[in-house]
Formats: sequence, C-alpha cells, structure tokens
Amino acid sequence: MKYIIANWKTNMTLDDVVSWISGFDPSFIPPKIQVVIAPSLIHIFPVADALKKTSVLIASQDVSIEDKGNHTGETAAFQIKELCKFSIVGHSERKEDTKVVIKKIDICLSNGITPIVCFTEPESLSTYKRPGLIYAWEDPNNISQGGVYREKSQEEIIDGVGKIRMILGENESLLYGGSVNKQNIAGLAAMKELDGVLVGNASLDPKHFTEIIRSYIHM
Amino acid sequence: MKYIIANWKTNMTLDDVVSWISGFDPSFIPPKIQVVIAPSLIHIFPVADALKKTSVLIASQDVSIEDKGNHTGETAAFQIKELCKFSIVGHSERKEDTKVVIKKIDICLSNGITPIVCFTEPESLSTYKRPGLIYAWEDPNNISQGGVYREKSQEEIIDGVGKIRMILGENESLLYGGSVNKQNIAGLAAMKELDGVLVGNASLDPKHFTEIIRSYIHM
Repeated sequence: MKYIIANWKTNMTLDDVVSWISGFDPSFIPPKIQVVIAPSLIHIFPVADALKKTSVLIASQDVSIEDKGNHTGETAAFQIKELCKFSIVGHSERKEDTKVVIKKIDICLSNGITPIVCFTEPESLSTYKRPGLIYAWEDPNNISQGGVYREKSQEEIIDGVGKIRMILGENESLLYGGSVNKQNIAGLAAMKELDGVLVGNASLDPKHFTEIIRSYIHM
Repeated sequence: MKYIIANWKTNMTLDDVVSWISGFDPSFIPPKIQVVIAPSLIHIFPVADALKKTSVLIASQDVSIEDKGNHTGETAAFQIKELCKFSIVGHSERKEDTKVVIKKIDICLSNGITPIVCFTEPESLSTYKRPGLIYAWEDPNNISQGGVYREKSQEEIIDGVGKIRMILGENESLLYGGSVNKQNIAGLAAMKELDGVLVGNASLDPKHFTEIIRSYIHM
C-alpha cells in the first residue's frame, strides 16, 4: 500500500474546502493507493461527509494528550476516531517534546487511530518505534521554509532513507515529507524503500495533488 | 443582554451531540438572552448547521495564536470566524501565560470574533481590558474539581463581583463561571452585577441547561 497524505495545515477557509472537494475527482485512485486528507479540525466533519463514498480517508493534523473530561479547547482521540482513521503526530511545526509525541502515539493506538508519526532525525525513531504506526520523515534539509522550495538530490534522499531503514527495518510504512511536489514526485514515487509521501503546500491545489497521486499509478 | 454559555469541554461524542441537539428546544429563548454553545472544534460544523435557524450562536473553546499558514494542527481565527461569533479565551484549564491570552484576545478582535475572556484573579483584568470583550470570572474557590461541586455563599460571590466591577466598570459584560448549575442559578440570575454565566458540566445535559436558561426569563 502506498499512502499519499495531504496535510492542509492552517490554510483553508470553508470556501477553499468546498472548492477543493469539487476540484478533486478521486474515482481514478486504484486500491493500491490510500489517499488521506488532513484538514483543520473545524473542517473535518464536512470533508469526511463529502468524501464518505470515496476511497479517501481522513486524518487529523494532531491529537490531544487529554482524554474525555474538563479540558477546554482540546479535541481528544475518542472524538477524532469517529471521523478519522489516521492522525498526524509530532509534526515539526508543533515543536513537541519526544515524551508528548510518545503519549500521543499511544493515545492514538489505544483509540484505534493509526498515527502518522513525523520525525526529523532518524535517531528519534527508536523511541517511537512500535507496531501499527506509519512513519513520515520530515527531511530537515528539505522542508519548505516560507514557501521556498529547498531542493535536495535524489542521492541524498536515498542515503537518508537507507539510514532510517536500518533503524526501522523493511516492513514498516515509511513516508517522505519535505517539499513534495510535482517536480520531485517521480523520483520519490520510484523509490521502493518509500511507502508514500506526506504533502504540504502542494496538496492545497487539488489538480497539483492529483498529479502527485497519478505519479504512483504505474509504479 | 444576558449571555448563557455552554462550555462542553472535551466531553461529547458525535452521538452525544446529536442527542443533545434533539433534546434541546431553543424556541422559548427570548431576545434578551443570548445562548452560546461551545463544542469541541471537530463538532462545531454540525452544531452550527443544526442550530443555524435558531437564536443560538456558536463559540470555539479556544483559538490559535497562529494565522493562516504552515501550522500543522492549529485552527486559526480566520477559520473559526466563519462558524463562530465567539471564542472562549484563556480558560484556566489551558494554563496559558497572560501574554498568550492577550495575543488570542487581539487575534479574535481583529477577526471580528468576540472573545469570552476567562480570568481567575481580578488583578489580571487590567491587562486584558479593552473594548469589545466579554469577561468570565472563573471563581477559583468555586470551580468544579473532578466533578465535585464546591459551594460558595452568595455573599462571597457578591463580594468578588464587587471587586471585579471596580476594575472593570459598570458597562462591561461580566459572566460568572464556577460550578454553575440548577441549584445555584437562581441566586446568580438575580445578581444585577452579572450579565450571565459560563456553564461547564451542567451544560452537558440539555434539560439541565434549559433549566439554567429558564432562570433568566423572568429576571
């Protein structure tokens, strides 16, 4: 299975969401590709509703460390799991402590949510590793900074992925996340060591995101 | 105007939300009472949709300090304002720094959201005070702790509200929030110095919440 995850981050208005959905036709997606959309929490309900008859699944962009109870402003795993099969956890933009990320991983797992665990340094992987996760390497040398695309050679990515696979083993799902777009997707889609991509800015345009998905069809 | 705010905190499932809405008939609410519901972010869309033809308005339980952009997991004011007229800000359960609370107040105001600013100590009020806010006194001696109701005498509440009014003046909207329920609402509704209540646990039951609202009808 290849996973192609759209992380919309904090970019969309409701109109943007409606226009994205109407500009995205998921009927071409073959069963070997799992497309996942991660809207802002406030947009999860309408996105899940609009895509419920398609193969596309929903992720939250984060999960609370709190459970049910008096936690004003938190959205907990027991609420997220009703609409989302996945949750992005530990994204570098959240600047979270390793202990918090581990807590979130375990909360997801105990609620039947598959955590998409982001990490920048391969070293942190050994503390996160456990059954049932998807891992997403946010390559620190290749993360969009203020919209500027920082190109990295395919060789450097292969080298990094190799180091990660030494820790992770061959059977875990590993995604690449660092300025993924239609310019570099062919090389990423061709890498057998990767199980997909976590797409940021390029996922905001449904046509651009569709091109990224299409790169996987003949792989 | 009297404001009666239901802060559902992190308690509801989707089934709970559906059952709450079907158990709540807002048609009896007179125009002098503004009822506001604060669901979890993930439930704001369906709640706003279900209540759109009523006088009830929606609040978020928090707002991000971030604006539009690459902020995985955040829900920003520009997204909240599309569905919510209000946002609870600075609730004690969030344990936020005064500077963060002030930033959130200003982000709400610049997005046309009315912040319902929670505070425990009257002293913090002078830093928060500015036009266009609703203030909610989370009386530290009267906050539910683990579901245990901590009763406080009407005299003590009047004394506290008097101190707050010295800082706030007479014209600002001031709500009381501390274990508000059907047992103590008559006394709170009778206090002319208060402009309403912020209701926590007692708002989870639509019948209980309706009784609280009804206490204001003949005031």
